[in-house]
Amino acid sequence: MPYLCVPEIFLDANATTPVLPEIFEVMQNVCCSQYGNPSSSHLAGTKPKKILADTRTAAAELFNVNDGRFIFNSGATEGINTAVLSALAPYTGSEQTRKCLLYGATEHKAVPEALKHWNQVLGLKAQLLEIPTNQFGELDLEFIEKNLSKALMLCTMGANNETGVVQNLEEVNSLLNHSSKVPWLVDSVQVLGKVPLDLGKLAIDYATFSAHKLYGPKGTGCLFVRDSAPYTPLQQGGGQECGERGGTENMAGIAALGRIFQWLKAPGTSPFQDMNQLLAYRDQILSALRHLFPDLVLNQPYPGSLPTTLNFAVPGFDSSQLIAMFDAAGIRVSAGSACSKGRPQSFVLKAMGLPSWQCEGAIRLSFGPASSPEFIQQVTQRIEEMAKRRNATATPTNNELWVPDPFALGFAGFADNVNKTLYYAGDILQVEQYLQQRFSNSEWQLTKLEAGKHEFGDFFFKIADANHFTIGHNYTGNALAFTSGGVVITEKQCEDVEIISAEEVIRRNFVLIDVRERLEFTMQSLTDTEYSVIESERHDWCRLALSYTHDKATEAAITVCRSGGRSLKAAALIHAASRAKVYSCSDGATDIFQLLAEK
Amino acid sequence: MPYLCVPEIFLDANATTPVLPEIFEVMQNVCCSQYGNPSSSHLAGTKPKKILADTRTAAAELFNVNDGRFIFNSGATEGINTAVLSALAPYTGSEQTRKCLLYGATEHKAVPEALKHWNQVLGLKAQLLEIPTNQFGELDLEFIEKNLSKALMLCTMGANNETGVVQNLEEVNSLLNHSSKVPWLVDSVQVLGKVPLDLGKLAIDYATFSAHKLYGPKGTGCLFVRDSAPYTPLQQGGGQECGERGGTENMAGIAALGRIFQWLKAPGTSPFQDMNQLLAYRDQILSALRHLFPDLVLNQPYPGSLPTTLNFAVPGFDSSQLIAMFDAAGIRVSAGSACSKGRPQSFVLKAMGLPSWQCEGAIRLSFGPASSPEFIQQVTQRIEEMAKRRNATATPTNNELWVPDPFALGFAGFADNVNKTLYYAGDILQVEQYLQQRFSNSEWQLTKLEAGKHEFGDFFFKIADANHFTIGHNYTGNALAFTSGGVVITEKQCEDVEIISAEEVIRRNFVLIDVRERLEFTMQSLTDTEYSVIESERHDWCRLALSYTHDKATEAAITVCRSGGRSLKAAALIHAASRAKVYSCSDGATDIFQLLAEK
Repeated sequence: MPYLCVPEIFLDANATTPVLPEIFEVMQNVCCSQYGNPSSSHLAGTKPKKILADTRTAAAELFNVNDGRFIFNSGATEGINTAVLSALAPYTGSEQTRKCLLYGATEHKAVPEALKHWNQVLGLKAQLLEIPTNQFGELDLEFIEKNLSKALMLCTMGANNETGVVQNLEEVNSLLNHSSKVPWLVDSVQVLGKVPLDLGKLAIDYATFSAHKLYGPKGTGCLFVRDSAPYTPLQQGGGQECGERGGTENMAGIAALGRIFQWLKAPGTSPFQDMNQLLAYRDQILSALRHLFPDLVLNQPYPGSLPTTLNFAVPGFDSSQLIAMFDAAGIRVSAGSACSKGRPQSFVLKAMGLPSWQCEGAIRLSFGPASSPEFIQQVTQRIEEMAKRRNATATPTNNELWVPDPFALGFAGFADNVNKTLYYAGDILQVEQYLQQRFSNSEWQLTKLEAGKHEFGDFFFKIADANHFTIGHNYTGNALAFTSGGVVITEKQCEDVEIISAEEVIRRNFVLIDVRERLEFTMQSLTDTEYSVIESERHDWCRLALSYTHDKATEAAITVCRSGGRSLKAAALIHAASRAKVYSCSDGATDIFQLLAEK
Repeated sequence: MPYLCVPEIFLDANATTPVLPEIFEVMQNVCCSQYGNPSSSHLAGTKPKKILADTRTAAAELFNVNDGRFIFNSGATEGINTAVLSALAPYTGSEQTRKCLLYGATEHKAVPEALKHWNQVLGLKAQLLEIPTNQFGELDLEFIEKNLSKALMLCTMGANNETGVVQNLEEVNSLLNHSSKVPWLVDSVQVLGKVPLDLGKLAIDYATFSAHKLYGPKGTGCLFVRDSAPYTPLQQGGGQECGERGGTENMAGIAALGRIFQWLKAPGTSPFQDMNQLLAYRDQILSALRHLFPDLVLNQPYPGSLPTTLNFAVPGFDSSQLIAMFDAAGIRVSAGSACSKGRPQSFVLKAMGLPSWQCEGAIRLSFGPASSPEFIQQVTQRIEEMAKRRNATATPTNNELWVPDPFALGFAGFADNVNKTLYYAGDILQVEQYLQQRFSNSEWQLTKLEAGKHEFGDFFFKIADANHFTIGHNYTGNALAFTSGGVVITEKQCEDVEIISAEEVIRRNFVLIDVRERLEFTMQSLTDTEYSVIESERHDWCRLALSYTHDKATEAAITVCRSGGRSLKAAALIHAASRAKVYSCSDGATDIFQLLAEK
């Protein structure tokens, strides 16, 4: 029986895409056969030179423009930095405190970061001014109009990477004074292949493109520059790109870009689906998602946004929980821009004025325009299976020993399920968000433990003061000391854990300690394999660590999680409590399933 | 019988290299299977993240350094620009007219270009100061020492791309004051894989690398930055590379780089040959070259230079003639840096004080360190065959009508081979260099034609004044008018020529008019094919054009050259003189041979 998580279903096309086989063939030719340097005078330079020229011609035709040039580069971020430098370099060293740099509040972070950077490097001190958007993510045109006269540069985007909101560039265009024009950059990364862009009609000065958002390789793209726009190279070298961008050209990437432009010019012959088909795909996926999450809320105008992008939130879940859940089911989705991970909230959704919980719980699901109907069917089937599994799972009861996050929070509790009382040590304010979910005020009584020793079944709590306590197990003798920041596990203790790869795991006879969360177990349970498995969520890790005894007669145990991070910590915790040697898997459960599926 | 020019022998490894199959496999995995964005939080980001970390670790181990970082980028030019910006950005907007930017006279042009660029963009007005070299290409250490205290930056290179001269970096290192240090950039592109580089021993602040010089793809590389060195990003974006270089990482390129670093760390397991083997290869090739050119002169210290690089000149030939000759024989060599083509002289050799003719005639021949003995044997065999062909060719006699360059020079002559007199029209001073070769003063008498009409066999000269004359043919009635700049052929006349691809040529029954030069015919003659062929060197094009008649009964004729440039001009000239339709091949003779070989 196939495991749910295999094969991987990649639904993060707005972050990146695989290279299509037809495009990879083009790259192979350029890497291995026609590998000459286009700057060479000998014959091996001829074909690469022609690839450059042909790709440029295709771009000019595709975007309907003849008064500008396409400069090949390493991708949109380089393009953005080049455009910003070009617009700002003329003011180097002269303070521009009364001037502003205008950019949309929902721009990709690369835009404000580049503006901030060059504003500082060139010593301009211009004001960075964010153009607000309405709840639909549309730019405030009046704001632009009001501030345009003092702007050194205007930066907007064609379509938003997180929400798929398509900006009305013609309206922005109509605001510009075409005689004394503010340089206008349009981040066009997400429109490529999804929304037509007519550079002949719009007075855009700079437009940026990346190949890897449309089945090309990462690290390549191009920048359109209008002939009338100021230009300063970001890198000078051996005179490539007419002296406008030094460095040997990324030929494989440019050839791939050429293939993509050719396809876009002749839609009938390309693997790209038409708009209506893409809209229908998105409807199908959304409908399956509503079975999985009946209370799903969309974070985007629908259907009036990029047909390949869905952005939603689910009450009660934050992004990382949902990502982990989808990951366990073999579906890769993101919390927004791949480049802004780690940020607690989506700034894009925040700028649109969405409620906090939607910004914190946002999930972006995006597919490429070359998706086949079969692929979309796989997607919906997988989501329907997730819904089935979720519905079949009973609500878990509260474990008795409850330590929501032993590494971050100085808190441990013991739940008396009969008297509905949670006895606890440490700072309860730290765990408020966890409490809401498990021990609601209306049902549970919370009782703080006084200094001294308290016994609860096999466990005991020894309270020293508000910030120091120990929990332990009467029979194993295991114990863990807490400070206000939780259990202290040193780097050394983590380094001491022996790491084993997934390949090694499936060759040996480990007991697997799955240290992920309930949502993940539900979608992908290691109990479906031949191994002995212990499932232990984070709030249960301390109970496991305190009860753990190392019996030399039994098999060795190894912690497993999603990708080797949590498992390492859990193994160190078990060792700290019990002195027992527990291995940690450097890979994750998905790798184990993958290897088992290949066997 | 195989044609001499097929298969291509690529001897321009200092310009670029093919991607090796083992490396391409690594790229394929990253492009088509593990294609996730390393910034992604979901599982598809895990493997790419590991590739980044592993490649960085391999680099640190290979270069023996732990107090700096390796930042992945689009190649050495980006690295150079980043280093220059980093060193200079702290001075933005404050004039540094008393300070200098020190760089070696033989640096790759990217270095002075980047220095010039950022010096100007940042408004520094520092002096660009070239460090002279001796005749062996070694930097003048006293000069460095003398100027170091006023330098904002010092740029040197590990090994020179044109001559293979290896710089003594330890000597440079010993000059640096390690307490108040001038930022030091070392262009390390050509040392990678050829000379060991110990960043643990040398106080280098920035070192640049490109993957495509060692069998990786173009458009990828990395910059080493010492932790103590100033740093300013060249591009800011989504926080990649710890916020030091924005933009989605070129994963295929970085994975390739990782493979290369791994190989270099474990030489026994890699396809790279050891130093002695490479030196022996070079000796073998040089010995074959001396059979082809007995009077060859080396432009480099030998053997004390990169073992994979040969740089030489041959009296009587300029670089472009030799490149064309090698091209015709299927060997790709260059005149120096691929990035400085079009320059009449090698500035590197000039800086070393070599005579003009050596700088103008320099040929660089370079092979990669993974070359097999079989490949080197093919190379020497091919060169020996070239020598055989050259020796078998009789010195051409002077054609009667002689027009050395009808498109550039207002000059036409008629050689009376009996009386050893060259009758001519136009400015003889323009053609001095051509005269030396064909009509030496000691043997030939030069007679300028007076105004009026003069007949020579079938041809006539009608002289109007010093700058205007016509030459024509009595029987065909064809004629060509000359001004001081030669025959005027308009763009329109060139556009009117019908272009045919090599593929089309071999499907039809054209008469081929080969309009290349003698050296090229010698190495690669279209008469070896099944086609009717007319060979016509440039100085003979006018004779051909004037004699040409279009006979509808005969086959169509097409001009062919090396790559479609000369053939177009020659076809337009023939049409201008004769009104006959002559096609031009958009590709070159090598393409025709290639297609015939594949048939």
